Amino acid sequence: MIGRKLTDRIVLDGTLAGKKLARLTLVDVVTPPEPAGTDIAAECLSGDLCESGTVDKLIAEKPDVIFHLAAIVSGEAETDFDKGYRVNLDATRALFEAIRAVEGYCPRVVFTSSLAVFGAPFPDVIPDDFHLTPLTSYGAQKACGEMLLADFTRKGMLDGIGIRLPTICVRPGKPNKAASSFFSGIIREPLAGQEAVLPVSPDVVHWIASPRAAIGFLIHAAGLDSEALGPRRNLTMPGLGISVGDMIASLREVAGDKVASRIREQRDPFVEKIVAGWPARFDTRRANDLGFAADRDFKAIIQAHVDDELGGKIA
Amino acid sequence: MIGRKLTDRIVLDGTLAGKKLARLTLVDVVTPPEPAGTDIAAECLSGDLCESGTVDKLIAEKPDVIFHLAAIVSGEAETDFDKGYRVNLDATRALFEAIRAVEGYCPRVVFTSSLAVFGAPFPDVIPDDFHLTPLTSYGAQKACGEMLLADFTRKGMLDGIGIRLPTICVRPGKPNKAASSFFSGIIREPLAGQEAVLPVSPDVVHWIASPRAAIGFLIHAAGLDSEALGPRRNLTMPGLGISVGDMIASLREVAGDKVASRIREQRDPFVEKIVAGWPARFDTRRANDLGFAADRDFKAIIQAHVDDELGGKIA
Repeated sequence: MIGRKLTDRIVLDGTLAGKKLARLTLVDVVTPPEPAGTDIAAECLSGDLCESGTVDKLIAEKPDVIFHLAAIVSGEAETDFDKGYRVNLDATRALFEAIRAVEGYCPRVVFTSSLAVFGAPFPDVIPDDFHLTPLTSYGAQKACGEMLLADFTRKGMLDGIGIRLPTICVRPGKPNKAASSFFSGIIREPLAGQEAVLPVSPDVVHWIASPRAAIGFLIHAAGLDSEALGPRRNLTMPGLGISVGDMIASLREVAGDKVASRIREQRDPFVEKIVAGWPARFDTRRANDLGFAADRDFKAIIQAHVDDELGGKIA
Repeated sequence: MIGRKLTDRIVLDGTLAGKKLARLTLVDVVTPPEPAGTDIAAECLSGDLCESGTVDKLIAEKPDVIFHLAAIVSGEAETDFDKGYRVNLDATRALFEAIRAVEGYCPRVVFTSSLAVFGAPFPDVIPDDFHLTPLTSYGAQKACGEMLLADFTRKGMLDGIGIRLPTICVRPGKPNKAASSFFSGIIREPLAGQEAVLPVSPDVVHWIASPRAAIGFLIHAAGLDSEALGPRRNLTMPGLGISVGDMIASLREVAGDKVASRIREQRDPFVEKIVAGWPARFDTRRANDLGFAADRDFKAIIQAHVDDELGGKIA
């Protein structure tokens, strides 16, 4: 999802990191579609990043900027331990090693990390210098990726920035297996005329960003001045710390009572327990100072979803 | 050094983690000597932990406690990037994976991490929840090891504790390539009748522990109750935050002016720069509450060195 939206945005901009866009190479486990509406050369590849052939093809043209978004989600990393480490850690390292192996090549690498690098108990507001104590394998793998990114960068082997994305909301498409899936579901499904289940208390507060904001973070990271960043290469991204109750109130304001009434509260102790271990609010001073910008408010997020995904129409 | 002293202590105690000592398996890159003064069965092996045969032999007898001390030091990890990752990260992971592969086996694993997981800039006193921003490859490798240890533990694959050791002072033996080597050298060499060079300002403050204290941490970690520890499995060890000037004053008190005058101040900008990036003082509340105990004062550390390493005699 992020990859597709990022491609669309880059093609629309026609520039990246202050340079005119010359070429795109898109890699995923299944071949990504050719980007539409552009005559920019695009190579679309499928492959497994753990296989050296794939990585070598990816960097053959020495792109100036590499977005490394490939990962399996937290739920799958938790149930398939080996696959999680292989995809989320080993493939990341293989990519960094392949870049290192190319003489005189030091591309900007934007790595999507996660708030899952943090683990409860938390202070009320989590500062930029809070320690990494992940409580999931996914979080541990992302934390290792952050360490590698910073170390390879420090050694001049690549020029990395790790960005810890908030939960993306409203995520388009279908519900997925992530325990966080309902944060999007309770907005997306009602707007599309369907019922949605809320498995937690409306008091639950969560740190979210819209797809538009997330893409904005990636683009901004691609062009960010290394000098301003210093050696601490991994950044918590700004977001909205909002309660589920306030999210629903915003939905009611934007779309009316009929839409909001499509949410049915039905507690799920399993999901409640997972969500209780998640962080709620951050002080993202470093990222703010570096020019990363959060969404204005949740109503704007809903409206953007309606505009971008529903052609402006609420069911 | 730590491995040898730890073996001596365990043999002397005859117990470990509340159990009578039944068997020892010692593994190093060169075959360790048989422990003296005991009739406890000891197997002494040489090998590379990255090779599966070595790890399999190590855990063949399913020891209840594994001390994983194997590492190459920061200087070498910095100059030999590949070797650092192989020894400090891959071998650690190989050990954890080998343990995981044994059905129904969940030993206590005591992993020696390092303060090098932290990187400047620092607050005056570094709290237990300060973030991991290593500024060396060694620190990055240890930080990854911490993540793996906590994750394998959380999944019930092993029962790990990571302890971040202060700089060991007074380290017996010869100077090594670590930039921290002089902290021991300025005490050890004068006590043995030799001149020592101090390459930094006497104002430099450093976080240190004696070999005795370090062995005490390892032994205590081996028997620590998991319940008390919770999911945050990596702990900064208590130490003394002491200035080089105060270390020298203590040396003068214990051993006299003649010994203290063997220290020659000759600044080394290379060492000064490295040391400037090191942490000075920690608030190790968690470890203190869990019963890890620091040295009483620096004079006691010097006296212990004289007793343990010099047969009570100052040159």
